[in-house]
Order: sequence, then C-alpha cells, then structure tokens
Amino acid sequence: MTAQPTPVTVLGLGPMGQALAGAFLAAGHPTTVWNRSPGKAEAVVARGARLADSAAAAIAASPLVIVCVIDYAAVRAIIEPAVDALRGRTLVNLTSDEPEQVRDLAAWASGFDYLDGSIMTPTITIGEPSARVLYSGPEDTFDRHRDALASIGGTATYLGADPGRAAAYDMALLDVFWTSMSGLVHAFALARAEGVKARDLAPHAQDVMSLLPVFTGQLAGEVDDGEHPGEQSSLRSAAAGMAHILRASRRHGLDTSVLAAALDIARSAIPDHGDEGFSRLAEVIAR
Amino acid sequence: MTAQPTPVTVLGLGPMGQALAGAFLAAGHPTTVWNRSPGKAEAVVARGARLADSAAAAIAASPLVIVCVIDYAAVRAIIEPAVDALRGRTLVNLTSDEPEQVRDLAAWASGFDYLDGSIMTPTITIGEPSARVLYSGPEDTFDRHRDALASIGGTATYLGADPGRAAAYDMALLDVFWTSMSGLVHAFALARAEGVKARDLAPHAQDVMSLLPVFTGQLAGEVDDGEHPGEQSSLRSAAAGMAHILRASRRHGLDTSVLAAALDIARSAIPDHGDEGFSRLAEVIAR
Repeated sequence: MTAQPTPVTVLGLGPMGQALAGAFLAAGHPTTVWNRSPGKAEAVVARGARLADSAAAAIAASPLVIVCVIDYAAVRAIIEPAVDALRGRTLVNLTSDEPEQVRDLAAWASGFDYLDGSIMTPTITIGEPSARVLYSGPEDTFDRHRDALASIGGTATYLGADPGRAAAYDMALLDVFWTSMSGLVHAFALARAEGVKARDLAPHAQDVMSLLPVFTGQLAGEVDDGEHPGEQSSLRSAAAGMAHILRASRRHGLDTSVLAAALDIARSAIPDHGDEGFSRLAEVIAR
Repeated sequence: MTAQPTPVTVLGLGPMGQALAGAFLAAGHPTTVWNRSPGKAEAVVARGARLADSAAAAIAASPLVIVCVIDYAAVRAIIEPAVDALRGRTLVNLTSDEPEQVRDLAAWASGFDYLDGSIMTPTITIGEPSARVLYSGPEDTFDRHRDALASIGGTATYLGADPGRAAAYDMALLDVFWTSMSGLVHAFALARAEGVKARDLAPHAQDVMSLLPVFTGQLAGEVDDGEHPGEQSSLRSAAAGMAHILRASRRHGLDTSVLAAALDIARSAIPDHGDEGFSRLAEVIAR
C-alpha cells in the first residue's frame, strides 16, 4: 500500500460509479466525482467525495481517473471535450462495451495513459473480497496503479497489452451470464405455468447451477482440443431434452424463442455430429 | 435399510440406465436388466446383473421395476405389451418428458403402482452423494420404496401426489440448464473469435456462474411477489449489455439467434418496464 493514497476521480455515478466512488473513499483516497446529469452525487458526497462542476475539473483533480458509464459513446462524449485536462494522467475505463470500441478508443488516446477494465461482478461486490475486475492495456500503467485499483476489492486480473482483451473476456462472460439469466426467468415462467412457485424451484435450480462450473471445465478442454466425446451425453439426447421443454412451454403459451433458437442450432449439427457432445456447438455457432 | 435388499429390474441401458443398474448392484440388490437393442448389457452383467430376454421377463423378476429410456413414447412401447407382467408391482419411471405425458401415463397405469421420478444430475453422480432425484406420485409408493431408491444415491425429494410434478420441475430445471449450456458454447465461440482460448476463459466463466445461485434466490422472490426492483440493474441496462454482445458476435459472423431472441424479449418490455429488474421477464414470457 502507498503511504499516501492517490487522489482518484470517478466519472459517472450510476449504481456502479457510486459503488466505485464509495470503495475509493472507504480505502482513504481523496475522491472527486462528476456525473453528466446532476443529483446523483448526494450519497457519495455525504461520505466525503468532492463534487466537481465539470468533467474537465473532475479530471484535473486527480492523477487517476476512472470512468464508468453506459457505453463507449458516452465515454467519448465526456472525454473528448476534456482531453486537454487528461494530459499526463491515467484514464481507467471500466465501462462495458465491445472489444472493437475499446481498441478504437485506445488508439485515439494520446497524451495520457489508457487502461481498460471490465468489472465482472455486481455493484454489491465492489470493495468486497468477491469483486472481480479484468484489465488490459500497457502493463506498466496497470502496475503503477495496482495499489489504488485494489481499493475496488477482490481480484484484479491483468490479461495483457491488447487493450481489447478485457472487453473480449467481458463480452464472452456476459454472454454466459445473460443467456443463463434468460433461461432462469423462462424456467420460472414455465414452473409458474405448472403451478410451481419460483421459491420452491429455486433451491433445485441452484443445485443444477452448481453443476455448470464442472461442465465448463470439461467443455473448455473439448473446445480447445477440437474433440467432442458424446458417450455420456450426446447432441442427439440434448436436442431430445430441449424439444421436451419446448413442447411443454408451448403447451402453456409461453414465448419459446430463446430455446427454439438453441434447439435449432443443436438440430443443425445432428446429421453430421449427433453422437458427439454439446461442446461441438462452439464450432457450429462459428461456421 | 431392509435386511434383504429388494430385487430390482432396470429397463433401458443407455448411459443413465447402466449407471442406475450399477448403483443397485453396488448396493446389493439382485438386479435384472433388459434393453430393446442388445449388446448394451455386457458391463452390468459383468458386475452381476441378470439379463432377461424380454421386457416381460425382466418385469416379472422384481417387485420394483425402474424404466429409464429416451422418452415416454419409448416407455409406452415397452410397458404396454408387458402390462400383465406389471400387475401388483411398482413401476418407477425415471425417463424425462413433459408433465402432460407423465400424467397421461399415470392415468393409464392400473393394476400396478406408478411413481414418477426425474434425475437432475449427470450419470457420473449416480450412486454418489451428489445425485439429485425428484419424485412425485402416491406418497405410500414412494415411502415403500424409499430404501431401495436410496441406492441411486444423493438426495431424493418427494414433491407430492400429482404425478406430473417431478416432470414439471425437471422441465424448468433443464430449461435453465440447456439455456445456460447454450450460452456457454456461444461464449467459447465468441472468445475464440477474439483469440481467447476456452481454457483461459473457463475459470472466469466459473466465477460468473458462481453468481447465478445468488441471483436465482433474489429473482425467485421477486417473481413470486410480483415486485421487480431495478435500482441496481434495470432491464434497460441489461438490454444495453446484451446488445454489445450481439454486435461483437455479429462482427465475427457468429450465429446470434439465441441472444437475439433473449434481447428481443428484454426490449419488448422496456417501454413499460425499462426501469424494473430482469425478473419482470418471467411475466413477459408468459403473456
């Protein structure tokens, strides 16, 4: 830890920006905040943050500037008019967007250090041991601010110099997350249609979810090795199972578009790969 | 435990049927097996199972008959011609299918006891503490065979007299499972398109998955209570995140049908419910 905590600026005070500002304050960093629309700073100002009256003033207040807003278009709208204020400082962009947008912004950035980060855990984890943040960009920039960034809590993982790499992980991980969440709300809808309360289903759903990390480890190896053994569970049997769920859902008049799309992909692979495992679909999706 | 383990018959020797027969053998039950197509019994016969030469002969060998095949059409094709042999016995159907199919079969069943079950864990868990099986149907039938069924391992949960209830849970839980697995293979495809190995993504995907049980508990309460707070994460921000993944995936030419369907559902809810939480979608899916 540094003896004197680095002053930090947080641009953007949505739920995540507020959580970040709170974590820097809790760790003793002099913290300046700014938000495009007013009225969001009250809670963090009450905890000791200084509210700047412009993005440029907020940036000028600290050597380390964090931005966390809705997307990269919003980042650019804030940063581009204030680029002179950034000179000689470090911008750590914790906004979530596509790797392509990140690389464009990193290429545009000059006169200041640019590090990209992706927060992989919900706002409630910020400042706690369960937080997970991925970073990519210049390694010396990451190293220089590692102590200050540790105030965000949990585990910080540096993924390499390609600035888009954290965003690539972010996209893939959010892909799992939102697709799973879509399956969860659909399962609750199907259960309810069958007279089963969500609270009664939940502990069993949690049991099923506890299997996912095991399958993830197994399928990852199969995807990388291009080998898709299907002895224990074949694409054909997966498709049969999915078809049951689809029919049960249709019987109750539920929207079945997500599962129907997943089943179509599985079925498209059956003629050539029906006896192989589910991991084969990573290739089918890409062809 | 009974002093003398009940003789058990297992009809169907796919991967799950073989695992079940193995578990009954391991627990000391005299075990008779049969499979429609020959040549699948070798491994369990080597472990002490007796191979019957017809379904009727296999059924006649034991008071407790387990059937685990591809679907209920396959169950009926086996059971209907052998219904006389079932008289006075108990049929425990561990085949996965729709609740409607289960209720039809239970209504048809007469002259024998019928219990429906759904195995919620993979074949490798059978006989182990991690197995999870849900049962529904007459409670006295479940109670009478509870000890023998304990040989399947893990936790047996009795869900009530409606024979379709275990299947209703099964469908909803497989809905979460297969939708999540579809998200996982898509994430591996997206990561690979970005030059990220599946094995490098996997530990982070496992971190993300470890959050799902927490959200499941939270969303279950919201679904049951019809309250969908969105302060920490709104449908609008979820849709923005999903749109980033969709664009990143399209840029790489990946199939995006699953995520596009999920995003369409989220977007359809934004005009009326954009500031509410994701759990609102359980209602949107059902309307």
